[in-house]
Amino acid sequence: MKRIGIIAKPHKPEARAILQELLPWLESRGVESVLDEDTAGLTGRSGGQPKADLPGLVDLLLVLGGDGTLLSVARLVRARDVPILGINLGGLGFLTEVTLEEIYPTLDAVFQGTYGVTQRILLSAAVRRQGERIGEYIALNDAVINKGALARMIELEIHIDGQYVTTFRADGLILSTPTGSTAYCLAAGGPIVYPTLRALVLAPICPHMLTFRPLVIPDAAKVEIVQTSADENAYLTLDGQVGFTLRHRDVIEVGRSDHTITLIKAPGKNYFQILRAKLKWGER
Amino acid sequence: MKRIGIIAKPHKPEARAILQELLPWLESRGVESVLDEDTAGLTGRSGGQPKADLPGLVDLLLVLGGDGTLLSVARLVRARDVPILGINLGGLGFLTEVTLEEIYPTLDAVFQGTYGVTQRILLSAAVRRQGERIGEYIALNDAVINKGALARMIELEIHIDGQYVTTFRADGLILSTPTGSTAYCLAAGGPIVYPTLRALVLAPICPHMLTFRPLVIPDAAKVEIVQTSADENAYLTLDGQVGFTLRHRDVIEVGRSDHTITLIKAPGKNYFQILRAKLKWGER
Amino acid sequence: MKRIGIIAKPHKPEARAILQELLPWLESRGVESVLDEDTAGLTGRSGGQPKADLPGLVDLLLVLGGDGTLLSVARLVRARDVPILGINLGGLGFLTEVTLEEIYPTLDAVFQGTYGVTQRILLSAAVRRQGERIGEYIALNDAVINKGALARMIELEIHIDGQYVTTFRADGLILSTPTGSTAYCLAAGGPIVYPTLRALVLAPICPHMLTFRPLVIPDAAKVEIVQTSADENAYLTLDGQVGFTLRHRDVIEVGRSDHTITLIKAPGKNYFQILRAKLKWGER
Amino acid sequence: MKRIGIIAKPHKPEARAILQELLPWLESRGVESVLDEDTAGLTGRSGGQPKADLPGLVDLLLVLGGDGTLLSVARLVRARDVPILGINLGGLGFLTEVTLEEIYPTLDAVFQGTYGVTQRILLSAAVRRQGERIGEYIALNDAVINKGALARMIELEIHIDGQYVTTFRADGLILSTPTGSTAYCLAAGGPIVYPTLRALVLAPICPHMLTFRPLVIPDAAKVEIVQTSADENAYLTLDGQVGFTLRHRDVIEVGRSDHTITLIKAPGKNYFQILRAKLKWGER
Repeated sequence: MKRIGIIAKPHKPEARAILQELLPWLESRGVESVLDEDTAGLTGRSGGQPKADLPGLVDLLLVLGGDGTLLSVARLVRARDVPILGINLGGLGFLTEVTLEEIYPTLDAVFQGTYGVTQRILLSAAVRRQGERIGEYIALNDAVINKGALARMIELEIHIDGQYVTTFRADGLILSTPTGSTAYCLAAGGPIVYPTLRALVLAPICPHMLTFRPLVIPDAAKVEIVQTSADENAYLTLDGQVGFTLRHRDVIEVGRSDHTITLIKAPGKNYFQILRAKLKWGER
Repeated sequence: MKRIGIIAKPHKPEARAILQELLPWLESRGVESVLDEDTAGLTGRSGGQPKADLPGLVDLLLVLGGDGTLLSVARLVRARDVPILGINLGGLGFLTEVTLEEIYPTLDAVFQGTYGVTQRILLSAAVRRQGERIGEYIALNDAVINKGALARMIELEIHIDGQYVTTFRADGLILSTPTGSTAYCLAAGGPIVYPTLRALVLAPICPHMLTFRPLVIPDAAKVEIVQTSADENAYLTLDGQVGFTLRHRDVIEVGRSDHTITLIKAPGKNYFQILRAKLKWGER
Repeated sequence: MKRIGIIAKPHKPEARAILQELLPWLESRGVESVLDEDTAGLTGRSGGQPKADLPGLVDLLLVLGGDGTLLSVARLVRARDVPILGINLGGLGFLTEVTLEEIYPTLDAVFQGTYGVTQRILLSAAVRRQGERIGEYIALNDAVINKGALARMIELEIHIDGQYVTTFRADGLILSTPTGSTAYCLAAGGPIVYPTLRALVLAPICPHMLTFRPLVIPDAAKVEIVQTSADENAYLTLDGQVGFTLRHRDVIEVGRSDHTITLIKAPGKNYFQILRAKLKWGER
Repeated sequence: MKRIGIIAKPHKPEARAILQELLPWLESRGVESVLDEDTAGLTGRSGGQPKADLPGLVDLLLVLGGDGTLLSVARLVRARDVPILGINLGGLGFLTEVTLEEIYPTLDAVFQGTYGVTQRILLSAAVRRQGERIGEYIALNDAVINKGALARMIELEIHIDGQYVTTFRADGLILSTPTGSTAYCLAAGGPIVYPTLRALVLAPICPHMLTFRPLVIPDAAKVEIVQTSADENAYLTLDGQVGFTLRHRDVIEVGRSDHTITLIKAPGKNYFQILRAKLKWGER
């Protein structure tokens, strides 16, 4: 670990105080910090790098923010599988497991090599219009197809590995990784999927067909969704952050990305502890 | 029953054939038909009336279409409680209980006075912005507050009869009449409410707080919803047909309207039969 | 308020310390305490009365325990509508709203007449076997028909006001009052029903027919459930406390009881506050 | 395929007519039929074999009945992975995909080697009492821990791979294979899991903790459930067919069995077609 990239949540002044302490601490350990432009601006340092270049320049990416910030970083990493350490500025996240108090012990563990990692699949989503690929996206949590705010519903047709599955009317459809299963997918009635299971979840949003229940399939499956609503009022969203307007008969191809992402785990925490804390599951 | 108003679903040519038979049949029974402008256009007859005037001119409104058409007519009726007879062009609706084959026997029953009616409450929804009422609406099924297509969620605050209930993040909130409980509200996980129960349903759409479940309250309750999301990406929709863009801190006041609506029942059908047919509940 | 009946949860020694303070306090205010036999035994006092006689002897029933204790007392009260004040030994209940710290202020409010009450409907449930009524029960929360532990499912047929509703296979069926809607019925997916709404909830337990959703009907409805499973492995339970073994073709008649029950409210608390506390709904 | 074992659903006389045609048909193709004792009795043939011995005597097991019959046969097969062909006497099952009309074409396909198979995991469930293993079971669909009919709930504690997960109160808990996900687990709110995914589902039955949602975990996980209810009113059931009474502090160990089972697929049908038919998903 010679060089650590640091990306802070934009417009979060509390990150500044942390950086003022963290940057000299890293330097004292002989570790070079590389900041993205926004984060550099926050500290008054010059020499910030474009966010998209950071994964290529460093051995580890430290994200200061919440799960939302980490999601946006995860989509940048792609083929360069540089590990990500998520520090939550506000408590505990599903992805940003390390709290503010745990930064230094966790970084010490990282430098000593006594840390665990968890490998997570990414979703790849492409839009095909009249036979042509017009957009390609990546997501760590989910790809969501949903209706416009004033539309009553959309109609979608699902195919899995070339087999017709069903046509249904709903507010939308969530295609989620196990990582995303505790995010929006859970609100739509989806199951909690253990993060390392090689699976995808398809969860309808407010389906008019009451028997259409969340579906869990192998992550090797190729999913195709055809937007069959006549009116053009459907959207594709990636991780709730990137959007795309769909047209009638657009086909959305979704599957596991060729790349995975590596998250550094908070020492001494396991998945079920985080689940208990986030879902307020009482202990005995 | 001297005058019957007839409103057909626009752009449905199959209505024309029905009207060609129905209009002379009514005339032969000494009943005058009053058509709205679109429906008159469909038949080539002149003298169509503006849709909104029809309730004031007739003793009964005959709706040819589906539940959607009937919903739009129901909102026109307001204080003039003229009974509505819904004929479903495509089978069986929750509101348009009479199928094409049953038109003439049902009209005979109506002329002989041997028909049943069901009284349904209407919702009244108003938007208050900075203390001022800027919009007033009516709905037979539901008033829905929901997020924009590319927004991640909205935050809403609920007050009932002046008491604070909760603040929650979700895709939205449905305020439904018993009539609307078998429409969108059911897709969002709401219960089926018997249509004459004097109740309202509040059903969250994909709530992030998993313990927020559909709530059934007396229809005399005054509900206030405050749109507390910072970004202006929330909408109010009435019966899935009329929309309104909400701003930060807009207050949506929802309650039972002073007026009810009278639907003429299909002879020989009861509510549970329709429920069984629509929800595909198998009989023994 | 001359005479207060006191019923403590059996085998709860913590009640003894409370009674040692409470009984002299009541005496000092000129109020006579009448204890049931178990509670008298707990204090070492003689003169305890049979539990079932207490409602006829006093002006108010004070229940020390949890919601379970209050449910058992509520079923005793029947025609004598003596108000019940529920003190929760362990925190906050839906029915026992008053916590230990609030006993004396609440009793002061009661003596000064500055307290609120809430009227709750009771369920009446009767079993008819081969045309003969063989059991009659009362419940404040719910009447539940469910399968035996080793049975795979039961089959039930529902009729409401003489109309056939459906036949379905499930683990069972809950018939709940609004009061019971936040108890077992909620775990089975039922809605939260405002406690004073005049309604009953029918909620299937693990129905095999996925479109059979909880049903909310007027409390004036007469519900009949026919146990149509061939094997005799079905049970009726009232408030989770009283059980009865059902046979093939037994008919369970359920409706609102002729009597209601009066609960004394904790001063300064409203229903939604209790809901927020119990369901861990976060406030802003 | 020299020898085919045949097991018919007991007490199903319609199987007799099928056997009268099927047995000579098999003989004419040089295939020996081996019947279990009950099935032999049905045809009047002598020489029936004990059901449990059949898997060791034949190359293929033909099951005439419904999914329930096939489940009971699947548990017999264990280490001897003889393929099973399920013929549904009443239409279409999730496991007995072949309908009566399809028997002969399917058997022809089997003899010609032009058939597909699907490999399914089995669950292994053992009960440990005071450190000692006192029962070992196998299941194709599910292992269910549930409360007695008159009990209010049970309390269970879940550990996965030695990690504490949660303690919860409920009617019970379902541990399901992907195969079982469309059976009881679906009625309890579980997701539909593609049958070849290497996963287990844990679905609570009527959990009192509303945030405890169905959990999908890798099938390599070792699950331990501790029955922590004080009263002894909990049961373990395998495939809804075999039951066992649990005591306080009994530990139920559940995981993937070392053996899988091979089901012969109906020619020309895929999983999603069966799903559509069984869940009444409308096609376009």
